[in-house]
Order: sequence, then structure tokens, then C-alpha cells
Amino acid sequence: MANFGGHAIPGSFFLLYGFWLTVKHILQHHWRTNQPKARRVMPPLFRKLDYMEGGFLIFASFVGIMVEQFVVDGPHARLYNPEGKSWVKLMNWQHSTMYLFFGISGMALVASTASKQVPAGLDRLALSLALFVEGFLFLYHLHNRPLLDAHIHSLLLFAVFSASASTMLEVFKRDDIVLELLRAGLFFLQGSWFYQIGFVLYPPNGPKWDLTLHDNVMFVTMCFCWHLAVALLLVAGISSAVWLNDAVAWLCLNAR
Amino acid sequence: MANFGGHAIPGSFFLLYGFWLTVKHILQHHWRTNQPKARRVMPPLFRKLDYMEGGFLIFASFVGIMVEQFVVDGPHARLYNPEGKSWVKLMNWQHSTMYLFFGISGMALVASTASKQVPAGLDRLALSLALFVEGFLFLYHLHNRPLLDAHIHSLLLFAVFSASASTMLEVFKRDDIVLELLRAGLFFLQGSWFYQIGFVLYPPNGPKWDLTLHDNVMFVTMCFCWHLAVALLLVAGISSAVWLNDAVAWLCLNAR
Amino acid sequence: MANFGGHAIPGSFFLLYGFWLTVKHILQHHWRTNQPKARRVMPPLFRKLDYMEGGFLIFASFVGIMVEQFVVDGPHARLYNPEGKSWVKLMNWQHSTMYLFFGISGMALVASTASKQVPAGLDRLALSLALFVEGFLFLYHLHNRPLLDAHIHSLLLFAVFSASASTMLEVFKRDDIVLELLRAGLFFLQGSWFYQIGFVLYPPNGPKWDLTLHDNVMFVTMCFCWHLAVALLLVAGISSAVWLNDAVAWLCLNAR
Amino acid sequence: MANFGGHAIPGSFFLLYGFWLTVKHILQHHWRTNQPKARRVMPPLFRKLDYMEGGFLIFASFVGIMVEQFVVDGPHARLYNPEGKSWVKLMNWQHSTMYLFFGISGMALVASTASKQVPAGLDRLALSLALFVEGFLFLYHLHNRPLLDAHIHSLLLFAVFSASASTMLEVFKRDDIVLELLRAGLFFLQGSWFYQIGFVLYPPNGPKWDLTLHDNVMFVTMCFCWHLAVALLLVAGISSAVWLNDAVAWLCLNAR
Repeated sequence: MANFGGHAIPGSFFLLYGFWLTVKHILQHHWRTNQPKARRVMPPLFRKLDYMEGGFLIFASFVGIMVEQFVVDGPHARLYNPEGKSWVKLMNWQHSTMYLFFGISGMALVASTASKQVPAGLDRLALSLALFVEGFLFLYHLHNRPLLDAHIHSLLLFAVFSASASTMLEVFKRDDIVLELLRAGLFFLQGSWFYQIGFVLYPPNGPKWDLTLHDNVMFVTMCFCWHLAVALLLVAGISSAVWLNDAVAWLCLNAR
Repeated sequence: MANFGGHAIPGSFFLLYGFWLTVKHILQHHWRTNQPKARRVMPPLFRKLDYMEGGFLIFASFVGIMVEQFVVDGPHARLYNPEGKSWVKLMNWQHSTMYLFFGISGMALVASTASKQVPAGLDRLALSLALFVEGFLFLYHLHNRPLLDAHIHSLLLFAVFSASASTMLEVFKRDDIVLELLRAGLFFLQGSWFYQIGFVLYPPNGPKWDLTLHDNVMFVTMCFCWHLAVALLLVAGISSAVWLNDAVAWLCLNAR
Repeated sequence: MANFGGHAIPGSFFLLYGFWLTVKHILQHHWRTNQPKARRVMPPLFRKLDYMEGGFLIFASFVGIMVEQFVVDGPHARLYNPEGKSWVKLMNWQHSTMYLFFGISGMALVASTASKQVPAGLDRLALSLALFVEGFLFLYHLHNRPLLDAHIHSLLLFAVFSASASTMLEVFKRDDIVLELLRAGLFFLQGSWFYQIGFVLYPPNGPKWDLTLHDNVMFVTMCFCWHLAVALLLVAGISSAVWLNDAVAWLCLNAR
Repeated sequence: MANFGGHAIPGSFFLLYGFWLTVKHILQHHWRTNQPKARRVMPPLFRKLDYMEGGFLIFASFVGIMVEQFVVDGPHARLYNPEGKSWVKLMNWQHSTMYLFFGISGMALVASTASKQVPAGLDRLALSLALFVEGFLFLYHLHNRPLLDAHIHSLLLFAVFSASASTMLEVFKRDDIVLELLRAGLFFLQGSWFYQIGFVLYPPNGPKWDLTLHDNVMFVTMCFCWHLAVALLLVAGISSAVWLNDAVAWLCLNAR
């Protein structure tokens, strides 16, 4: 998917997911801090939200894999071409693999919501592994690319591996609102950075970027920090909006 | 042991060990969560299992060292050849060293099961060190090998060092089922990846792989992620099977 | 700001900040350890100190950004020069970005002091990110510099990233006096090292250093350890002075 | 100190220190586990031991610095030679710096034993920094050395940085016997590896090693693992001996 759209689609997905996570975790945090200790059972609404999130992850992964495999120039589920003695469309297979792990994390979320037998923290472990696999496959993607192209993708890896590490921490420190919002912020960062990659490598209108200029590398590094600032701002803004909104009161009333 | 069998034997060992760990830890977890707090003493059955595991590790390590030393073309316990001014069969000595540390971890398991004086967590520390030494010796193994050969072994190191790190975490966080299952899953991954290395470097039937082709490197990286997915699936499947099986009920009855 | 003054100004700032942190945290620690458990509410004085600190960070960052943008040879808020097809004064923009994140950490400190709704630890997370961004931008600064220049800046990164990591730990381990003093010490180290960089690269009087001599690299590495020793000594000295001083008794009386 | 003796002296020191730590921590652990909860005050004997240890560290560091400075071919406290425009005996200065930090860790141990005002964990932080500085200075020592020389020192760094990291963990997890024994074991490893370096680089009798042969690198890597095994064995043996010995009973009687 070496074009602008191919970066805008995952970018939009990650931005939306970051938005969803911010809202969900702020509501959960509000619930936790406002309940007396005796009644620390999550209301059914939150379980429904988790089912929806898990179901969406499974569904979106399935669609993603199908699209990657069966687009016109896709591999159509063929992995090896014995005549040409070559692998068929490895890029599409790699993307399918990434989707697969997000699908697995969706399944882990559904399972850990549905049953108390499933150990707590398994959904976070699966999400952490999904992010790790995403970064891991990107890591061996960068070989032999021009300077700016490799650099802009390696910055993406910062966001991906940070998200993987902070999600791994959540396995051991459940219900920590700082870590949960950090995760949401890193999804925002990842999403907006996908857009940035699209704009730099495949500018929809306007001139091409010089992929070998060192000044561009320096600008892009700084730009990554601005995206981080914006991501923090978005999390802070959405949190405040959710917090202040009457919706919270309404929700808490109805959730009881 | 530069042939297919030399990779299939440790691969089978690690797959079996992963299976054993999954079953053992699920049974222990079931016991822990179903007991009232007052009676948190492990039933004698679990101690017997730990003795068996430790004894097996010691025995298997001993056999492994003996085989490495006294096979026909082995070093026969000679380390240095003063005439030729060279080391004798360093590869066999390295494998013996790896086995030695797994043997030590077996001893630590037996000791910490037998006596309350032995500090809790020592068995995990020893296992973590055994995995670290395995990875450490492999690390300086990769020098001067063709691209694909070095890459496929460096992927193995991801599994080995991750297992070492997660086992080290268990020193401080005992009886955490997520970490225990992660360890089991990483043993599955290591085991199945040993088979994969065997199939790629010494294909038992079929053509040789081109060890310098960059597409093969990309495929192998992706393939590692598939092995990870299969390892997760295996752990999940075995856990569910153990859980659902009447054996659990039977065991808990008999263990009391 | 490639001159001696451009390194002395941030150096002085970090030295002062280290001094401030040492005094503040020693007073807080004294308060915590001398109060009966029932009355573990921070006295209003400490909240005022936090407001002052946050306000100062915001103010100083704002001034810093303004100066970097609107000095005579600054970019005057212009980022891209369409005629020359080049970025305008990227160095000044990078410094502005660093200041921006310290400003954000000031806002987080004010917010978490003002409201209980803001999760505890957010101020430390923001400070940790500010330090990370500082180090991150420096990291891609070092390209194509002479040996000693690159080395002396990479030593700075040790101080910066260590401070970022130890501050991140404080998100999860609040009110740990060892971590708080370590952070203060690392700010001292950073501050004095900025001065050292100024003296080495832009010696105000005396001869130039040979930037390619390997012996200079070895001396500078050792010198960094001496700065660390001095930073530890400063923290120990200030802590003892605050502790022994009557001011403590006076403060605790008045804070009640 | 580029001769056999120059490696045997620190080696002996670290071996002795490892022995001391093993005995001390086993005795402390025995005391902790055998006391009723109400009387968890350390007996005065342990405080005396800590004073002795701290005093010895300060004294030995002082002697070490004096010797490094005022041996016949030492720098005699001169740092820069203005005529030759060169640094004077940087190697001796580096060793003095290492000793300085071990001296600081001795002071921290004395201070934290003497006063309750000194925060717990400060002595471990100082020891961790001393080990870090040792490794840090070695790290920039390895430049431009022959293959085997660089490799054998980089293996030393594994022991040094592992000890630094595990000691840093002890800042947060006090009185954890596994970590304490791990630290003792890593001092054994460091000590015996210093001897090994001496034997390889400056063989007291027998032929010189070929410093460029790759087989020697492989052997030395494996040999490092054997040293680790021996270090574990030593810790286990000494612990058992202390434990079983009547001395324990005697000590506990007298310490009351």
C-alpha cells in the first residue's frame, strides 16, 4: 500500500482507537474513584463496551486480512510461487500478519471480559504483543531505503515500541489511569504519524520531498515531538471534556 | 550438531517442556484460586511434580553433556590439543556448557522444593540464568555466517532472551499466571523455531534455500511471528483443555 | 547558540533547578516522616511551592521560546522559506520545542497541584517526557561533528536520559526520597556538564582544545564522573544543611 | 597496571568482598527469618559489621588512590603537563576515579548505618553508581585494542553492569535475599574474571595467547560462563556452610 491512502487508513484507525481508549478509560476511572470500596464491581455497561471493542478488533482484522489477500494485485492466499521460485507479495503477507495479531488481541479482550477464569492482564499482554509484532515487522522493513524514508519509519517505531512497553507494564499494574492514558496518547501519536508519513513520502498535492537532505531529517525529528505534544493535548482535552460533561453524571446514573 | 537431527532434538525437548509447564501452571493456578485463603499450602502432588521436573532436568543435562563429549567425533573431555595448539571441538564444549546450566537450574528447583531455607525465587533465577547463558553463547556463534543463517539464529535469540527476562521477572512476582504461561509460550516458540531452523538450513527433503536472498530474510521474520501466534494458540488451547477436563476435578479431589 | 553563553544559560538554569528540587524534597521528606499517620495532608506551603515551580516553568519556557524565535538572527516564527526551498533556523526551532515540553511539564504540575481529579504522577510523566524530548532532539544533533564534540554531547545524553528514566520511575513510586534526590542530582550533573561543554568547545579564555585527540576523549569521560561525584556531594551537602538548619523547625511550626 | 599483578590485586579484592557479602547477608537473612515480627530490630552486631565494611571501603579507596597517584611512575597529582600539552598518566587517574566512587559508597554505607535520617537504600544507590562508573570508564577503555583483549574486557563489563543493575534494584527491594546473593555472586564473577584476564593477557608462565584468533574468543566466552557457574557454586557452598555451622546458633545467642 505504497501510497497516501495506504497510510491514511491505518492512521485514521489508530486515531479513532486512541479517541475510544481515552473516553473509555476516563469513564472507568471516574467510576472507580466515585464508588465506595464495597461496590467495586464494574457496571455491565463497561463490559458491553469491552465486548464491542474486542468484536470490532476481530472484525476489522478479518476485513484487513481479506482485503490484503484478495485485492486485485494481492497474493490471493498464495505464499510461494514454485515456477518463479519466489515468495508472492511478501508486503501483503506482512500486513496480514500484523492484522492477525490485533485480531488475537481482540479475542483475548473478549475472552477476559467473558470469563473470570481467564487471568486478568491477558488482554493487555495480547495487545502488547500485537504492537511488538507490528514494530518487529517494520524493523526489518527499513532495509535499503533512502535516508528520510528509513528515518521517518524508525520514528514510528518509537511510538509503536513505547506503546508495546507501556501496555506490557499494564499487565502488572492494572487500572492505572496514567498508563491507560499514556497508551491512548501513544495511539494518537502513531495515528497522526502515519498521516505525516503519507504526507512526506506521497504528498497528495505539492512537490516531492528530497529524501536525502539532512535538514529534512532534522525537521522530521522535531515534527515527531510536535505530534507527541498534540497527542498529549488531545488526551488532556478529551479527558477534560468527558469529565466536565453532564454525560458523566448521566452515564453513572444509568449504569447503576 | 550441524544437521537436521541436531536441531530437532532440542526443538522436541523445548516443545515438551512448554507443554509440561502449561499443564503444571494451569493446575497450580486452579488450585490457588479455588482454595480458601487459610489453606494456601500446596498439596504434596505439586511438590512431587517439581521433584520430577528438577530430576528430569538434571538427568537430561547429564545425558546431554555425556553425549556431546563422548560421541564418536566428540572431544572426549579433552579441551586443549597441545600438539596442534588449538582448542578441541569448541562447539561440543559450548553445548555442554548450555546443558550444565539447565542442570544447575534443575538442582535449584529440587533444592527450593525440598527446603524452606532455600529462598523462594531461586529456581526461577537459575532458569533465567540458564536461558541467558544459552542466548549468550549463541550470540557469539553468529559471527561470519551467511545472511539468512545469522538472521534465523538471531530470531531464536529473541525467544531465548525474552524467556530469560520474563523468568527473571518471576523471581520478584511469584505465582503470576500470566508470566508463567508467557514462559511456557516462549518455550513453545523456541522449540518450534529450532525445527524451523532445521528445515531451512538442513532441509530433510527438497531443495536448498538461498542463504543470501533478502526476500528469504523477510519471509523468515514473518514466519517467526506465525510461530509466536501458534505458540499462543497452543498455550490457550492446552489451558482450556486442562481447565475443562474432568481431570481437574479429579486432581483436586485426590490432592486434598 | 553556539557560544559559551548559550551553554552557560541552560547550565545555570539546571543548576538552580537542582538546588530547588533538593531543598523542596528534603523539606517534604522531613514533613512526611515527622507527621503522625492520621494527618498526612501536605501543608498549604508545599502547594504554594508547587504552584510557584509550575508557574516558573511555564513562564521561563515562554520567555525561552520568544527569545529563540525573535532574537535578531532568529526565525521570527517562520518555519519554511519557499524561495530558498529550505527550513529556517532549525536549531532555534529545536530549542523552542525543548522549551515547549518543559512548559507542558509546568502546566501538568500546576494542574495536578490544583485538582485532585488530575491523576497523581502526571506531573512526573510530563517532566520525564520533557527530558526525553530534550535527549531525543540532541541525539540527532550529533551527526557529522568532530570526535570530541560528539562525545561530550553524548555524555550529556547519559545525564538527560537517566533523569528521564528515574523520573518515569517516580510515576509509579511516589514520594520516594531516594528517587527524588537522584533526580535533583541528575539536574546538577546536567547543569554543570553544560558549563563543561561551554568551557571545552568555546573556551572563554585560553587555547582551543584539539577536538580530534583521543586523550581528550578519555579525559572528558573521566571528568564526567567527577561531575557526577560533585553532584552527589552537592545533594548530600544541601540536604544536610537544610536538615540541620533551624529553618526546618521554623518552617514546620509555621506550616501547621 | 598492565601486568599480572595489576589484575590479581583487584581480583583478590572482589573475591574477598563477594565472600564477605555472602556471609553477611546469609547471617542477616537467618536473623530476619528467625525473629518474631515484633522484634525486627537488627542486633548491634550487624551495625558493627556495616561500620567495618564501610570503613574498609573508605580506607581501601584512599590507599588505592594514593598508590595510583604516588607510585614511582604515577602522575603525582599532576593532571596536565603544559609543556608537553598532554594529560599526565590518564590511566592512573581513571583508576583513582574508580576508587573514589567505591570510597563514596563506603561513606554512604557508614552514613546510612549511623543515622535513621539518611534514607534507606542510599548505600545501595551509591554502590550501584560505583559499579556503573567502573563499567563506564572501562567502556571507553577498549578502543583500538586487539580482538581478544577487547572481548575479554567487554565480558568483564557484563559482570560489572549486571552487578550495577541488580544493586540498583535493591534500592527499591530491600532485604531481598535472592538479590543480595546475586550481588555477592557477581562480585565473585568479577573477581575471578580479573584473574582470568591476567592469565590470558599477561600469562605469568607459559606461552602468550594469540590475541587475534577467533577460536580464542569463542573459548573465552565459554570460559566466562564457567566462571559464572563457579561463582554460583561458591555462593551456594558458602551459604550452606554458614547455615549448617554451629556458628549461626552461637552468633544469634551472642547478638541478642
